[in-house]
Amino acid sequence: MSKKIAVLLSGCGVFDGSEIHEAVITLLRLSGRGAQAQCFAPNIAQTEVINHLTGQPMAQSRNVLEESARIARGDIKGLNEANSSTLDALIVPGGFGAAKNLSSFASAGADMQVQADVLAFAQSFAKAGKPIGLICISPTLAAAIYGKDVICTIGNDENTAAALEKMGAKHQPCPVGDIVYDAQHNLVSTPAYMLANSISEAAEGINKLVDKVLELAGHRQ
Amino acid sequence: MSKKIAVLLSGCGVFDGSEIHEAVITLLRLSGRGAQAQCFAPNIAQTEVINHLTGQPMAQSRNVLEESARIARGDIKGLNEANSSTLDALIVPGGFGAAKNLSSFASAGADMQVQADVLAFAQSFAKAGKPIGLICISPTLAAAIYGKDVICTIGNDENTAAALEKMGAKHQPCPVGDIVYDAQHNLVSTPAYMLANSISEAAEGINKLVDKVLELAGHRQ
Repeated sequence: MSKKIAVLLSGCGVFDGSEIHEAVITLLRLSGRGAQAQCFAPNIAQTEVINHLTGQPMAQSRNVLEESARIARGDIKGLNEANSSTLDALIVPGGFGAAKNLSSFASAGADMQVQADVLAFAQSFAKAGKPIGLICISPTLAAAIYGKDVICTIGNDENTAAALEKMGAKHQPCPVGDIVYDAQHNLVSTPAYMLANSISEAAEGINKLVDKVLELAGHRQ
Repeated sequence: MSKKIAVLLSGCGVFDGSEIHEAVITLLRLSGRGAQAQCFAPNIAQTEVINHLTGQPMAQSRNVLEESARIARGDIKGLNEANSSTLDALIVPGGFGAAKNLSSFASAGADMQVQADVLAFAQSFAKAGKPIGLICISPTLAAAIYGKDVICTIGNDENTAAALEKMGAKHQPCPVGDIVYDAQHNLVSTPAYMLANSISEAAEGINKLVDKVLELAGHRQ
């Protein structure tokens, strides 16, 4: 029976939602390895809408679940319908959506709050000992999910690493093509576009992360 | 010197823009093969905006270039800035955007018009003998670009194939993992999500299409 992996999206586009390349590479690798992906997103308004051509905010409102559905080709569930008991692992791609919609990290830094449905969903995996993979900026969620001393990476950005440590996580520098694995917490992380200069570079680390998550899934602790 | 390939987008999302998986798989394969991608899109309003969660139209207007910029992480040019003389080939991913924004195929069928900037851009490659790759529904553009007797595939959908033939193209059935190559016109096509049941299946044909386009690019006719 194929492993069923939750992919938590945060909109559609690097500046206000999920980083599209990271999300698609995750789905492609899961499919290529014979796993079944189920996409989820919180059914909430986006914190903001960014014009990706100019980088400027737009006077428009969009819904995180509806925009995430673009990446999922409509095959997505709201977190209010989520039940992790039938899921073997969770992967969260990056993009500013992870720091604007899933949490308030982009505006509040180490004082951030994680969106309530997101925190409950992620913690249900953590409490069951099921693996979680956090990509790019999404390891900023790690301390809130696991508590102090969780080990993860956002690459080598000193300010972001300092904020992670302030929240109680232990940051470990990592090159773009590699992963950091915290065996105690069953958490895998990779820098992806925190460091990547090309989509191929992002894919190298994400493919390793997906492979490690799949190796761990089904060996429940 | 790496080959420089134009990727023509039509928005961001399968129901009203570029099919996101097809676009990202194209960019990933180009990068993995050492080619340089340059994304383009027409700077026009989308024909419609579809809520990808419900499949219903939304009372909102979006711009094709701005939304395509989400897939390109902001690194995109309007077709008004496009000059194919520095580009070695063109690839057009599918999604309803190709049939709603790049042309009027979705509403007008065989009586469709191709958007003027799109037609001029694509024909500049065709006239120079440079290869073009058309994915999924975008081979509906082939007869307008090349004139009659161009050979291409949209998989095996009888209605779409009949419309292609009515426009003067010769349709050749093709399985999801393969490509059709018209050597006379230097055109490559693949069915992708016209047939694919998974992102891996779509990737199999798209990877072959990208590889063939790269093989042909630089062997200019």
